Amino acid sequence: MIDLGDVRLAAQRIAGAAHRTPVLTSRTLDQAVGAAVFLKAENFQRTGSFKVRGATNKIASLTAEDRARGVVAVSSGNHAAAVAFAARLFGTSATVVMPEDAPSSKRAATEGYGATVVPYDRYRERREDIAERIVAETGRVLVRPYDDWAVMAGQGTAALELVEAVGPLDALVVCVGGGGLIAGCSTAAKGLHPGTVVVGVEPEAGDDTRRSLAAGRRVRLDEVPRTIADGQAVDEPGELTFEVNRRLVDEVVTASDEEILDAMRFCFERLRVVVEPSGACALAAVLAGAVGDLRGRRVGVTLSGGNVDVARFRALFA
Amino acid sequence: MIDLGDVRLAAQRIAGAAHRTPVLTSRTLDQAVGAAVFLKAENFQRTGSFKVRGATNKIASLTAEDRARGVVAVSSGNHAAAVAFAARLFGTSATVVMPEDAPSSKRAATEGYGATVVPYDRYRERREDIAERIVAETGRVLVRPYDDWAVMAGQGTAALELVEAVGPLDALVVCVGGGGLIAGCSTAAKGLHPGTVVVGVEPEAGDDTRRSLAAGRRVRLDEVPRTIADGQAVDEPGELTFEVNRRLVDEVVTASDEEILDAMRFCFERLRVVVEPSGACALAAVLAGAVGDLRGRRVGVTLSGGNVDVARFRALFA
Repeated sequence: MIDLGDVRLAAQRIAGAAHRTPVLTSRTLDQAVGAAVFLKAENFQRTGSFKVRGATNKIASLTAEDRARGVVAVSSGNHAAAVAFAARLFGTSATVVMPEDAPSSKRAATEGYGATVVPYDRYRERREDIAERIVAETGRVLVRPYDDWAVMAGQGTAALELVEAVGPLDALVVCVGGGGLIAGCSTAAKGLHPGTVVVGVEPEAGDDTRRSLAAGRRVRLDEVPRTIADGQAVDEPGELTFEVNRRLVDEVVTASDEEILDAMRFCFERLRVVVEPSGACALAAVLAGAVGDLRGRRVGVTLSGGNVDVARFRALFA
Repeated sequence: MIDLGDVRLAAQRIAGAAHRTPVLTSRTLDQAVGAAVFLKAENFQRTGSFKVRGATNKIASLTAEDRARGVVAVSSGNHAAAVAFAARLFGTSATVVMPEDAPSSKRAATEGYGATVVPYDRYRERREDIAERIVAETGRVLVRPYDDWAVMAGQGTAALELVEAVGPLDALVVCVGGGGLIAGCSTAAKGLHPGTVVVGVEPEAGDDTRRSLAAGRRVRLDEVPRTIADGQAVDEPGELTFEVNRRLVDEVVTASDEEILDAMRFCFERLRVVVEPSGACALAAVLAGAVGDLRGRRVGVTLSGGNVDVARFRALFA
């Protein structure tokens, strides 16, 4: 398990590497929700998402020998760019396993940070097998996207910074994919103020953590969720993240793709900021009234990422 | 004429009413330009543009009698919302003359701030005639969008804040429509540091100020410019703004609509912020290399507004 001390240590390790992102507030938003809402703007984070916090903390925690052998990650999304970025920062090399049909912009971003991309045919090979082979052959350290204590502690620095910036929160609303961000953030928020209610938000089609909490054990969905929130298209909670979240997360609610688009539009037109679908999921539930009674409360909400290009943004709103 | 003292006085008057907007920086941007670039983010300003600075300073400067009679403005854009907002703030009433085919969102925003919208048929009536009639009949004070000393001094607070936040600038690049923003900003910037080079940017189709500076007198274009930068679709410089700008603006360059779209895309994908076409015009010229040699310099750039909805954004990039 991790505790507040691990998150504080992570904050020291990532200082200077990750941005201390701004907290956005808006009268329009406060009026819409009837609460004082504080948005932790991880869309302004380096590489465009919170993932850089966990990846940086993980790579900073490696021994000199491990670091010399380099790291490997499996991702076609924000985790890929985060690992590539953090590896370069610490002077080590990164190999990223990515499906060969991944968007060229994702591949270019990862290579732009100096990583080597290993493409695979996702209809013929399992990416885990390729990663395992690379680990076995090269001794590289696998940096998991969420199921790792150092990664979770790193993600928790987002909540630590938020509370340091605005003070105690009545509620903290966090998007949930594999559960790493909410595991770290609930550890930080409840470590600082045990009374803070932590609410997770999953896309409707990918409510594996909600079902798992209800069942009291990890539940795997019958199929990989189809949702615009690609960063949350996970079919089963992580083993370690679930151990944390079953203790610290008070509730998980869901947001539909339409509600996510409404939240992205709100961010665009009212706040003038760009948020990707997964990044808008927590705010979507807040705006849709799915997060219980927030009236008069002080509510923290993660905007977890902003990696959506103009072409995809146009297509989403077509 | 106005001087730095007028801008300082405006800053006192608008404190608390207008936001002290953030200054955005980006390593990616600095690398692209080869300079240290400081973006004054007026897209995060109240009502979504810098216009609220001038409108607030103007209405704050009125006598109690004038204020009791109310104000009138002629605009279908950012000036309309700014005057409506400032009027409500000072407890006076605003009438806004707007073409009857103006986008309903613009009308709704202006009415949302409590103003009365007077629609007119732009093919049958001149809006100036309607405004004059309202002034004559009601004694309301006309708040001009740029050709007014108090409005110019108010707009100048954007540059005053920018220099206070980041220190002396080698160059300041400002978008130009009627010339109010650059008149105020050049007054502030050169008042603080006479060596700062002030460069204006107009859309290619609307280069009336560039031509006027070249001719040494106000030049009117043959037709109202067709450009996506609707806030800069002005065919002749203001009388008072031109008096300031002929003295203080070192150069005016232009940006094409395509370059403006490139800058909007850069803001969206790299900075994750939403900027409207007129708001991206100054950055467009900087990114296109139209603003002389900036290498190694400290460059301030206005992002003047962010009022573009998702539907228009999609259409612009179709």
